Amino acid sequence: MSKVVFSLLVDNEAGVLSRISGLFSRRSYNIESLTVGETQEKGVSRMTVVADGDQDVLEQIEKQLAKLIDVREIKVLPADASVCRELILMKIAVTSEDRQQVIAIADIFRAKIVDVALDSLMVELTGTQSKIDAFTTLLGQYKIIELARTGITGLSRGRMDLD
Amino acid sequence: MSKVVFSLLVDNEAGVLSRISGLFSRRSYNIESLTVGETQEKGVSRMTVVADGDQDVLEQIEKQLAKLIDVREIKVLPADASVCRELILMKIAVTSEDRQQVIAIADIFRAKIVDVALDSLMVELTGTQSKIDAFTTLLGQYKIIELARTGITGLSRGRMDLD
Repeated sequence: MSKVVFSLLVDNEAGVLSRISGLFSRRSYNIESLTVGETQEKGVSRMTVVADGDQDVLEQIEKQLAKLIDVREIKVLPADASVCRELILMKIAVTSEDRQQVIAIADIFRAKIVDVALDSLMVELTGTQSKIDAFTTLLGQYKIIELARTGITGLSRGRMDLD
Repeated sequence: MSKVVFSLLVDNEAGVLSRISGLFSRRSYNIESLTVGETQEKGVSRMTVVADGDQDVLEQIEKQLAKLIDVREIKVLPADASVCRELILMKIAVTSEDRQQVIAIADIFRAKIVDVALDSLMVELTGTQSKIDAFTTLLGQYKIIELARTGITGLSRGRMDLD
């Protein structure tokens, strides 16, 4: 079992997301995370898919992805030669006593306080998956009202061929 | 035409992503962005979908989403009562002359330099969509080698019912 981060350039058309996610689900493969956003090129989006599983099946999926007409480029991002980041928002229930403790934890992680209410705080953090996991574990001692993660996005390090 | 941000709690099962994205694409509706990540509750993921379109069709889609068995909760995030954020990574080709200019722009936006090579820089920025758009426009004067955006994630402001 291994974790693979696929970075795809796809045509930004209706249905491309369901075709790609369908390719995984037909093999009963759960996608661990998926992010998609526009690129500098009009009509082209970059999709980052994290999948965890059997090496053979992941290789099959890569071949099938390459056959899709909407997929322009497919790369696997190696852990040691890429930058992967995730963004998380957490809304935490706080009393006036533990508000300062939560703010102190947020400071250590350089997280931002983005919303404050009488009985809650919302924090925003960007980082690697392990940093975000450590942060959510630490704040897990408080009552987490809501939590939203973007999933991982990433790029390979250093310079790529300009073409 | 209006833009709607749907925040869904879904069962984290194979196929849920393709069922939800299929619902949009069957109406030839392009999803502007989609992010999905795990929550504090095991087996439950939060999905944030941004769709732009006709109000009637978006209401139909909301009703159909609510009928899906994997969908536990569906909310529309109002722009004036929620915090929405996006994360972007950009790899920019730089000469030794314009490296300092790119770093100066990154500083203004409080973006982080996350990778440096002889002829490129990688910057990471988190913010609202308009901040990220301003940043990409400003850096568009340089050669953008690669760009990856997570798409928007968000939570409603203030405290929600704890149950």
